[in-house]
Amino acid sequence: MPVLLAPEQAPHLADLLRTANTVGLDYQLHNEPTSRIRGIGSLLCAGPEEISFLSNPRLKDQVAQCRAAAIIITQDVLDQLDLGPSRPVVVCSQPYLMYALIAQWFDQHRLSLLPAGIHPSAVIDPGAVIGDGVCIGPNCVIGAGAQIGAGSRLGPGCFIGQGAVLGKQGLLHANVTLYHGVSVGDRVIVHSGAVLGADGFGFAPDPFKGQGAWAKIAQLGGVIIGNDVEIGANTTIDRGALDDTVIGNGVKLDNQIMIAHNVRVGDNTAMAACVGVAGSTTIGRRCTIGGASMLSGHITLADDVHVSGGTAITSDVLVPGRYTGVYPYAEHGQWQKNAAVVSQLSQLRRRVRACEKNNS
Amino acid sequence: MPVLLAPEQAPHLADLLRTANTVGLDYQLHNEPTSRIRGIGSLLCAGPEEISFLSNPRLKDQVAQCRAAAIIITQDVLDQLDLGPSRPVVVCSQPYLMYALIAQWFDQHRLSLLPAGIHPSAVIDPGAVIGDGVCIGPNCVIGAGAQIGAGSRLGPGCFIGQGAVLGKQGLLHANVTLYHGVSVGDRVIVHSGAVLGADGFGFAPDPFKGQGAWAKIAQLGGVIIGNDVEIGANTTIDRGALDDTVIGNGVKLDNQIMIAHNVRVGDNTAMAACVGVAGSTTIGRRCTIGGASMLSGHITLADDVHVSGGTAITSDVLVPGRYTGVYPYAEHGQWQKNAAVVSQLSQLRRRVRACEKNNS
Amino acid sequence: MPVLLAPEQAPHLADLLRTANTVGLDYQLHNEPTSRIRGIGSLLCAGPEEISFLSNPRLKDQVAQCRAAAIIITQDVLDQLDLGPSRPVVVCSQPYLMYALIAQWFDQHRLSLLPAGIHPSAVIDPGAVIGDGVCIGPNCVIGAGAQIGAGSRLGPGCFIGQGAVLGKQGLLHANVTLYHGVSVGDRVIVHSGAVLGADGFGFAPDPFKGQGAWAKIAQLGGVIIGNDVEIGANTTIDRGALDDTVIGNGVKLDNQIMIAHNVRVGDNTAMAACVGVAGSTTIGRRCTIGGASMLSGHITLADDVHVSGGTAITSDVLVPGRYTGVYPYAEHGQWQKNAAVVSQLSQLRRRVRACEKNNS
Repeated sequence: MPVLLAPEQAPHLADLLRTANTVGLDYQLHNEPTSRIRGIGSLLCAGPEEISFLSNPRLKDQVAQCRAAAIIITQDVLDQLDLGPSRPVVVCSQPYLMYALIAQWFDQHRLSLLPAGIHPSAVIDPGAVIGDGVCIGPNCVIGAGAQIGAGSRLGPGCFIGQGAVLGKQGLLHANVTLYHGVSVGDRVIVHSGAVLGADGFGFAPDPFKGQGAWAKIAQLGGVIIGNDVEIGANTTIDRGALDDTVIGNGVKLDNQIMIAHNVRVGDNTAMAACVGVAGSTTIGRRCTIGGASMLSGHITLADDVHVSGGTAITSDVLVPGRYTGVYPYAEHGQWQKNAAVVSQLSQLRRRVRACEKNNS
Repeated sequence: MPVLLAPEQAPHLADLLRTANTVGLDYQLHNEPTSRIRGIGSLLCAGPEEISFLSNPRLKDQVAQCRAAAIIITQDVLDQLDLGPSRPVVVCSQPYLMYALIAQWFDQHRLSLLPAGIHPSAVIDPGAVIGDGVCIGPNCVIGAGAQIGAGSRLGPGCFIGQGAVLGKQGLLHANVTLYHGVSVGDRVIVHSGAVLGADGFGFAPDPFKGQGAWAKIAQLGGVIIGNDVEIGANTTIDRGALDDTVIGNGVKLDNQIMIAHNVRVGDNTAMAACVGVAGSTTIGRRCTIGGASMLSGHITLADDVHVSGGTAITSDVLVPGRYTGVYPYAEHGQWQKNAAVVSQLSQLRRRVRACEKNNS
Repeated sequence: MPVLLAPEQAPHLADLLRTANTVGLDYQLHNEPTSRIRGIGSLLCAGPEEISFLSNPRLKDQVAQCRAAAIIITQDVLDQLDLGPSRPVVVCSQPYLMYALIAQWFDQHRLSLLPAGIHPSAVIDPGAVIGDGVCIGPNCVIGAGAQIGAGSRLGPGCFIGQGAVLGKQGLLHANVTLYHGVSVGDRVIVHSGAVLGADGFGFAPDPFKGQGAWAKIAQLGGVIIGNDVEIGANTTIDRGALDDTVIGNGVKLDNQIMIAHNVRVGDNTAMAACVGVAGSTTIGRRCTIGGASMLSGHITLADDVHVSGGTAITSDVLVPGRYTGVYPYAEHGQWQKNAAVVSQLSQLRRRVRACEKNNS
């Protein structure tokens, strides 16, 4: 269940707003609530010591029932409601973004209470370079020549390979693996079980070892991750064969995504869970890739391409827009009938042509 | 290869049946075998010191060849066979369930021989609460305020975050990660590489950081796992955004499943491997979800919905039944012809309508 | 970025060729380059202290621009170019294989510089058997009766369960999990996060525990991995129910593959990432399975079957050849029109039949 701060740790709302990272956002606080803010909740679930927000105008009927200490709301919607002059509200043009930034404050507060410093069980090569204020959890292993930037935090059991680089203010959750030579930018979050820099899948037929045998193509390239990237749990990003696999700034990857060797992902592209991207494919900037989609290898997606969940993209997509390829499910009996026709579609077209000829 | 117990550790069949957890099952042992039972095998593979079972009547011709010390069988099938009066058999109305419970006995026996107690290399916060008889493997890390229920066992390298709770008689295999605040019920099994409680995938557009940039929505909800749940290797269950992600009692999840934030899975639902469930979807009780299926976000599946493997469910399914959406594969050339028609299906329908008009 | 050897560590080309494992390959070095070889690069990226190769004749126009110290090339292509008599080249009938073997040399060199021996933080049961020259990284845990073959190397945080066997010259990257009793052959590479031997997904309905409840079928079989296998990051291979799950010699598995219990994979078969193979399926030798494909349970694929990426194989494939089942994606509006027809395909066929009747 959502954890609330202890009452004595909870901030006054004005202080919370001031210390949250609301850079760029205009807002006004009307009526400081009497209670401190112990957490954040939805309109219907927030208690009297939490803050809530209205980002979807269709939910505005819920505001009357909302017990939260204060509500983040646009001026427009506020004008349509009759909350009375003393209701504590934060008026803001972008309530959803404001919610995001306040939620970040609570999460940062939680992180600030975790153990600091380097746990004595961590195994750190004397040749590694550890920045100021770095926190390293129990049983981490850091190889020779690795660098950990100032203010970064590693959960328990992380492995940082030889010569790998993690930038400043990074956050590796427990049990993250960075292979040798992987380079990660600043303010990057990596979730548990993610593996960055494993070998790309490359083999050459080796007839000298027997029919069908394979020779491994050692993967000598690296992985370069930009700034402000987030990488989900159990996601894997393989190292390049000769050149690098490159993830741009601001890219967001959900869980269980597979990025193959020599893929390039443009800035601020986001991918939902279970996406697979095959080798040497290039994805543009600001793309969104729906969950469980699959991108073939050696293709190019332009900037601002949006792929619906479950779609297999098998060729270049050079025009921005939305692309989809999921055919409808059905009750099983109905599906069986349709699927039987799919397997005879080319015959069906022939029959239609014959009919047309007869008719003409 | 299946390991057999050493002869001196193997139980007599009557003792095995008595100590196995066969609650509710009626059974009768006819003729205690002379040899002890060192393991369990299929009809064709079991050796003379193993027990076997016949659950599928179509396999009854294999019984004559079966070398097992004893066979679990229904009275019905036994009456159809001529095994002779001295053949050791366990007569039971549900041989498959009896097999399951006996197999559990062998696995429990194996577990009982593993090292007990808390390994000195485990790093346990003094504020954690460890129940009676808990076994904690090497290099586990247990955070402040975490609770481990009586009789639970953690394999090596597990991480239990701050305030996370594992119930009684749980079994975490090696290298399981529970983030802070995750709550797990009693008698839960979690396999290696599973990650419970990583951040859900939530971002708000942040125009102040640049075109297409994202602000992270910190995930402040939790994960609640019921009793008697099993979670497969490398499966990920994300924490909720504000409220919780909830997995009901008796749910069984195979490997590499992805459960996104705020999903709710009803009691006794089972999912095969590689399923992805997008955020805020609600799945009923006693559903079965076939392997590699994909469920869109914000949809509802009723109780007793059965989804065939590989199906993409993209909208509410409110009527119990079986649903399918996998279109047929084919030899590549045939597939090319059919796929070409698929991309022109709406034109094909227009042409059929034109023909119909001409004919009428 | 690709790391180059320090100049003083770099070999002369003749020495590199002699010490690389080029068994079976014929080659001739024309003109030893003056500089040592610090790495390997593509035709356009390799610098003057690297070697490059031309395997795809269509790239032969790039050779003129190539700055590499030497180029691996076939005699045929060399004859078509005018490189001059003093250009250092390695003439070889199979440049891609030669490249693979030289890349292996560089990777082996990197491995040879990693810490050797057994790290003091590793927890090794006194009953484990550790071969000569084995390297065991920090925080590894090795159970009773486990065996590690001569010359094998385990990265940090690996777990080798009770009685598990790893053959000779193996390489487990960081955070690999081998459950009890898993058997792995010689020269096997396993990447981080892979889990071998977790329980297969087996449950029997247990009416005595409540409507829809499940009894676990403990998985008593093993996993047997052949020689010269490579297993990708976060791939999972489950143990068998009673018999074993079997991976043949020379099999190559990419990342995030799921192999269910009692699957059998034939020698030299290769699978790209995100493939799922359901239980008890048998795959022949020399098959290739494209990324994100899904194979149903209890089916058989013959030798030399090639499955295109994203294909769901739901029944036996007994004839060698290429099989495909991915239907075309489209711009979203066009897709909507086509998908609507798919859901009415059986009616469409009825209408065609009616037209044909009218016409005849």
